[in-house]
Amino acid sequence: LGPGDDAAVLRLADGAECAVTVDLLTDGVDFRIGEVAPGRVGRKALAVSISDIAAMAARPLAAVIALALPRRGGKQLAIGLYEGLIPLAEKYDMSIAGGDINSWDGPLVISTTVIGQITARGPLCRHGARPGDRIVVTGQFGGSILGRHLDFDPRVDEALWLTENYDLRAGIDVSDGLSLDLSRLAAESGCGAVIDLALVPVADAARELSRQQGATEAELDSAALEHALSDGEDFELILAVAPEDAAQMIADQPLSITLTDIGQFIDQRGLWQIDADGRRCPLEAKGYLH
Amino acid sequence: LGPGDDAAVLRLADGAECAVTVDLLTDGVDFRIGEVAPGRVGRKALAVSISDIAAMAARPLAAVIALALPRRGGKQLAIGLYEGLIPLAEKYDMSIAGGDINSWDGPLVISTTVIGQITARGPLCRHGARPGDRIVVTGQFGGSILGRHLDFDPRVDEALWLTENYDLRAGIDVSDGLSLDLSRLAAESGCGAVIDLALVPVADAARELSRQQGATEAELDSAALEHALSDGEDFELILAVAPEDAAQMIADQPLSITLTDIGQFIDQRGLWQIDADGRRCPLEAKGYLH
Repeated sequence: LGPGDDAAVLRLADGAECAVTVDLLTDGVDFRIGEVAPGRVGRKALAVSISDIAAMAARPLAAVIALALPRRGGKQLAIGLYEGLIPLAEKYDMSIAGGDINSWDGPLVISTTVIGQITARGPLCRHGARPGDRIVVTGQFGGSILGRHLDFDPRVDEALWLTENYDLRAGIDVSDGLSLDLSRLAAESGCGAVIDLALVPVADAARELSRQQGATEAELDSAALEHALSDGEDFELILAVAPEDAAQMIADQPLSITLTDIGQFIDQRGLWQIDADGRRCPLEAKGYLH
Repeated sequence: LGPGDDAAVLRLADGAECAVTVDLLTDGVDFRIGEVAPGRVGRKALAVSISDIAAMAARPLAAVIALALPRRGGKQLAIGLYEGLIPLAEKYDMSIAGGDINSWDGPLVISTTVIGQITARGPLCRHGARPGDRIVVTGQFGGSILGRHLDFDPRVDEALWLTENYDLRAGIDVSDGLSLDLSRLAAESGCGAVIDLALVPVADAARELSRQQGATEAELDSAALEHALSDGEDFELILAVAPEDAAQMIADQPLSITLTDIGQFIDQRGLWQIDADGRRCPLEAKGYLH
């Protein structure tokens, strides 16, 4: 696969395929090491990469981790990171297969590479959505900065189960924002996407964050929706699903987390919303730009 | 494979095996971005990881690259890095399959992960040396800091050719120092190693560096040898070779770079030297400790 997907897919000489993804997290951008236990940081670093493998509907197999540790207290910090990393790796029966540990005069940097096994269904890519497919999402959106960005569960089992049981056409995980990542999936598929804003599942944390930011009760719904559409690091899945399968999936609700149909893919390129009067108008794709 | 080798070896569900390695290079430790063209830095970052794959006698297949770029001039820097990375990837017919690009307030950090294809001969590990095996090295050692640490050629083709044509028992690349990395290979193999110091191929750069550091002509040989034994980043290979095959290999000299037999693996653990009088005495393993 070329660039633009959540993970690269490599074909080995013997025809086997694996998915590979890398993420690099830095102190001050992705976490603040002074304000959070190192274990949560280590867990997040690995979870972010696992989420990319989940978005390909692949099974995480192994990780290699590279660290740049501050000289002062680096060893204790490394131990703390691994105390968070290892239980998550064990949960998915992954091995931490190797790594590279360095110390330097800069802040903590963690690079996580995860290798995944592509299933017999093949990789779930970003380019497979077709006009008419439904937009189905896992979970709720917005306000992850209040804590969920550190403690989220990557949707590995969910993606594997769904791809096995329904006709999934495309997928992406929401790392930078629901509207931004949806627009990316649509663009890679050569189509557009229209969201019914009333259907977007808004996380309680999005309301809480809006309150903290001074939204009045009257403003709360729209402020929280704005967070749901544009906040990064939800790490939920956006799936393009064949219409009949989407209807079945929503009726079945086969997972412990809620699946929600929030709209559909359309011919016309770009990102669109259905407003309160049922009219289609443009929707700005917002999110975190690296 | 457990930890302790140059790369991890993963078995996919369908039995295919791949080698995976990661390195993280930081400004101020592995290079000084103000003093060297970014292209050389990018090339080095990739070459370091390719060298680990070469040490496993595997074929590099793809890389994923993660960057933390300083905010100021980050885009130009990234372009410069890739101008060095891409030709090296093309040389080995590798794809740069993906990556993660971030900007932050810190110095440049580059994480390179390389995935390799294990050949039909299996991975060349560190644990396979047996007492009686010869210690064969590629190239020359010492003084790489004068420039070779940026521009070295990883020994991919050499490792693949040698493993195909001779009985290689173990291998490692010299990233931290000839004596230190040899002692690691011996320790992983549960044996010791004895070097005939007179046979160690000393690079011209090791002499040059010794001169720059004020060695007199009388001190030059021993100062240069010290560099050859303990300088990091030679990225040559140390191989454990079955005795008859080693003799054949040295007689054949089948590569464009010189192969040198510098000693043998022995029962007695530790690192040893043969001194000028032919006596065996301990040799300190020196090198770069991260």
